Amino acid sequence: MAQVAVMSPDGSVKKIDRDSKESLQALRKLSALMLKAALKQEFKGIRLGEAVADEDGFHVDSDKDNQQVSADELPALEDIIKGLAKNDAKVEFVEVTLEDALAEVEADPYSSELIKESAKDGKVAMYQLGDVKAIADADILVYGDVVKNLRLLSVAGAYWKGMSSNPMLQRIYGTVFFKKDALEDDLKKRQEAKERDHRVIGNQLDLFFVDPKVGAGLPYWMPKGATIRRTIERYIIDREVADGYKHVYTPVLMNLDAYKTSGHWEHYRDDMFPPMDMGDGEMLELRPMNCPSHIQVFKHHIRSYRDLPLRIAELGMMHRYEKSGALSGLQRVREMTLNDGHTFVALDQIRSEFAKILKLIMSVYKDFDITDYSFRLSLRDPKNTKKYYANDEMWEKSQSMLKAAMDDLNLDYYEAEGEAAFYGPKLDIQTKTALGNDETMSTIQLDFMLPERFGLTYVGNDGQEHMPVMIHRGVVGTMERFIAYLTEIYKGAFPTWLAPEQVHIIPVNEDAHGEYADELAKKFKAANIRVVVDHRNEKMGYKIREAQTQKVPYTLVVGDEEKNNNGVSVRKYGEKEQNEMSQDSFMNEILADIASYSREK
Amino acid sequence: MAQVAVMSPDGSVKKIDRDSKESLQALRKLSALMLKAALKQEFKGIRLGEAVADEDGFHVDSDKDNQQVSADELPALEDIIKGLAKNDAKVEFVEVTLEDALAEVEADPYSSELIKESAKDGKVAMYQLGDVKAIADADILVYGDVVKNLRLLSVAGAYWKGMSSNPMLQRIYGTVFFKKDALEDDLKKRQEAKERDHRVIGNQLDLFFVDPKVGAGLPYWMPKGATIRRTIERYIIDREVADGYKHVYTPVLMNLDAYKTSGHWEHYRDDMFPPMDMGDGEMLELRPMNCPSHIQVFKHHIRSYRDLPLRIAELGMMHRYEKSGALSGLQRVREMTLNDGHTFVALDQIRSEFAKILKLIMSVYKDFDITDYSFRLSLRDPKNTKKYYANDEMWEKSQSMLKAAMDDLNLDYYEAEGEAAFYGPKLDIQTKTALGNDETMSTIQLDFMLPERFGLTYVGNDGQEHMPVMIHRGVVGTMERFIAYLTEIYKGAFPTWLAPEQVHIIPVNEDAHGEYADELAKKFKAANIRVVVDHRNEKMGYKIREAQTQKVPYTLVVGDEEKNNNGVSVRKYGEKEQNEMSQDSFMNEILADIASYSREK
Repeated sequence: MAQVAVMSPDGSVKKIDRDSKESLQALRKLSALMLKAALKQEFKGIRLGEAVADEDGFHVDSDKDNQQVSADELPALEDIIKGLAKNDAKVEFVEVTLEDALAEVEADPYSSELIKESAKDGKVAMYQLGDVKAIADADILVYGDVVKNLRLLSVAGAYWKGMSSNPMLQRIYGTVFFKKDALEDDLKKRQEAKERDHRVIGNQLDLFFVDPKVGAGLPYWMPKGATIRRTIERYIIDREVADGYKHVYTPVLMNLDAYKTSGHWEHYRDDMFPPMDMGDGEMLELRPMNCPSHIQVFKHHIRSYRDLPLRIAELGMMHRYEKSGALSGLQRVREMTLNDGHTFVALDQIRSEFAKILKLIMSVYKDFDITDYSFRLSLRDPKNTKKYYANDEMWEKSQSMLKAAMDDLNLDYYEAEGEAAFYGPKLDIQTKTALGNDETMSTIQLDFMLPERFGLTYVGNDGQEHMPVMIHRGVVGTMERFIAYLTEIYKGAFPTWLAPEQVHIIPVNEDAHGEYADELAKKFKAANIRVVVDHRNEKMGYKIREAQTQKVPYTLVVGDEEKNNNGVSVRKYGEKEQNEMSQDSFMNEILADIASYSREK
Repeated sequence: MAQVAVMSPDGSVKKIDRDSKESLQALRKLSALMLKAALKQEFKGIRLGEAVADEDGFHVDSDKDNQQVSADELPALEDIIKGLAKNDAKVEFVEVTLEDALAEVEADPYSSELIKESAKDGKVAMYQLGDVKAIADADILVYGDVVKNLRLLSVAGAYWKGMSSNPMLQRIYGTVFFKKDALEDDLKKRQEAKERDHRVIGNQLDLFFVDPKVGAGLPYWMPKGATIRRTIERYIIDREVADGYKHVYTPVLMNLDAYKTSGHWEHYRDDMFPPMDMGDGEMLELRPMNCPSHIQVFKHHIRSYRDLPLRIAELGMMHRYEKSGALSGLQRVREMTLNDGHTFVALDQIRSEFAKILKLIMSVYKDFDITDYSFRLSLRDPKNTKKYYANDEMWEKSQSMLKAAMDDLNLDYYEAEGEAAFYGPKLDIQTKTALGNDETMSTIQLDFMLPERFGLTYVGNDGQEHMPVMIHRGVVGTMERFIAYLTEIYKGAFPTWLAPEQVHIIPVNEDAHGEYADELAKKFKAANIRVVVDHRNEKMGYKIREAQTQKVPYTLVVGDEEKNNNGVSVRKYGEKEQNEMSQDSFMNEILADIASYSREK
């Protein structure tokens, strides 16, 4: 196998397999350094921020006197990089005194700050390519002749150090591979991702927006997105209530003490919002999880074995502190609403309850047309049982019950020994995103610890107190992530039952047919169908195209013939032909479509 | 008219009308002082907190070595007070040095603290009755012989100074009047209030609870209360969507800057939660109002006159800082969800939009059987127009449009000149609570100021930019307050469409009829009826009584006859007789009942 030379931040060089992940990372790092060199060459006096290689490619931040680097300038920069690659480019390791390093970048406050941060004992370890240096902070490829299959992708603003109070730099993103095929595949995947990107579609269809100026990671659901969300919320609540869940509303705030009891404050504090001092001895915390809230519901009454399984569910709003750089559309947010539920069971009820939850999840997936998923059962490490909550009987019984339930349902699963949480085994249900990546859609997590920490008990039929087991479970996860996922899966063409606008009626001539269109709309509304009549003074072709762009499932055109026959001309989304039919036939068709939840008739 | 002598905290005495509010307050203050005296006499060494007269009566806090003052001891204390009243009791004004005052209450940390707080220039103004003193902080009746019609009502725990980190004292509540009739009326009203108290009913029916230990003023909605709330939420959203509102979801957090722009931070800060420093220059605030959020929705697009009226609505969660002492059940909370809406209109659309909102409100009231309400139109003071937002044309046009709309709808209203907010006129809709008190259920508030502060514009049909007017409107207010109100109005007997459990089925014999009961339940569930089968091993009479206590609208008893005839025996809530009917007839009856929203068939 081909090998490549890679230099480490200590200056040592080793040879590694060219087809490894590590070598690709080193190639990206070298490409970033070359992009720095190209920027310096192209724009005199440009100031340079970080040059980073990550899982997705590489990027370099820069600031050329507050002017934009434009997307038009990327090909020229690419050419410079390719030129550099031809000239037998080679990376050298240099150790510079802090003074010298700073003197060299005198006029560049960003580089200066980065250099100061990386200095050790007055010295800075750097990689040098020609007359350009970069801090040695990750492995880098030594020989530059391999930088051939590279593409600079885009430019976007990025705050210096990710803080909105800092100046905004220009971030240039790039991708690079050893082989041409790989680059082409990557570009195709990026194009597909762009077309499916829920942020792009969310904007086109006016589903939601996020404005960091009013709150980073805090989405605003516009009317259409809100309609989708409300439809899903009602659906999932109704399904759960029918399945024996008791839905509650509990506060988004709780005394911080509860999170000290639960252990969240100790282990999870970095992901929590800052506590609020209420001034009368009370410290309130925006909840990062709903479990302690549902525990309060359990504890509010004395519970008996007759109450079990007790299924408490909620669309529970939670807040988690994500770094602002990690925030993304509806996918990574700071405020989220989880389709959450906690079932309190006796130990011997785990098998049946687990199966019941699993059946609910799979039935819900079916309605959303999610078919590509797999199961991953995380068990405790049998060779190191001391790492886990100390109750062998609980572990053994429950793990064998989970396996038995999977077998009962005839489901294949991957056993991940040693992957269980400290407090209990779990099942993850992995789906594929539109781009083929794995995503954990649902989890069923057993928990032996919280019932103990909060002193939960029920009176058994022996009259004695027992500790219940808690099962944390999600069905569709948070509304935010789930709808981001669906938007990408459906490419914005939501199935009729979810579509914010289900029917778009276009009168051929406003004066002649506008009234008939309104009559139709009234009928549809009475049947709870979401309908809009397009009375605007625009050409019909334009209106039809727009309804397609907005991915409305049914577009109805009504003119003389339709009006005289009490009929409609129907064009389904994505289809070219138009079908004439009676009002009643159409009504039956769309109602059946909605009731079926189905994406495709 | 009879007059009474009242002493002011400065020691002066004046005569006032006995039937005035002021004299009743002074009587309450004297009664509190007498209760102090009675406590001192009955319990040696008791420590005494505040002695307060308020709108509702009077109360005294005490601490007798951490033992409870029991309700059984109240009559004895009452007798002592009546004894004191007979002995020509008279209040004297004394000015004591701080040293002397403290020396007298040496062993009582509460009294000591109160005395220190009230001292001025080393002296304390006090009222003295026999050998008992109280701080002169409010008017007091001079002659004690009128304290005849007094009742000590109850004892409850109350934190010293209202702070949960302080010791808990015993608070004795009392009521007092000059006339016997007035006392009897008051006691009757209190009894009625107790029977209707949503906190009492909420506990009996397991609707909700608040636990100050996990969060003061933060209600937990138990499954039954949550069902009522969810039903109302869906109802109101559907009504609003049908009426042209666009429902959205917006974050409960917002950058503090928005509340600086809106003016809330300047004028309303004391009612807001403490801001959270997110550590990257962002200060986030739990929103106290939804208006700035809906303004973001408006601003997200360029708006044209064709978009107006733009109706944005939300079940918006908000947080307001209420003092812990003011919190009460669902009535006064710190976290609430408002049925909120903001309509953005052109100036000349105010009349029609106002009428439309009003019609919606009245139609919703009808469905909730709210019939006793009146209108109060708050206008600007014509004699002092400088106090208000400076745009005479806007005020005059809008005020005359509001009046015209009221006239169009043939509605009587009270004109409250000078009661408008700084930023616009408003209409309050006043309902009566179960106890006959006025309560503002809905408000329609015009706002000229926020559109200006946030720079809102729309493009008119003249191609120019114009500023819209904002109409804040609530229909049923917050879910918390509205459901507290309904609970009291309905005395817990919710109409069928809202009842958490609509049908309670009791098999006469579990073995013989349990299965038939389950079959019935399955049918009802399929028709979205909320049903419970009572399979418990209890006597039938007990089960029927319990269904009545839980105020279930329909209790069905099924035995041999019902099973053989495919029928049911129906007992409606509050009725004694049982009616036999077929399944179908019953199904028709209950579905019509639910669909009618009505409280009474």
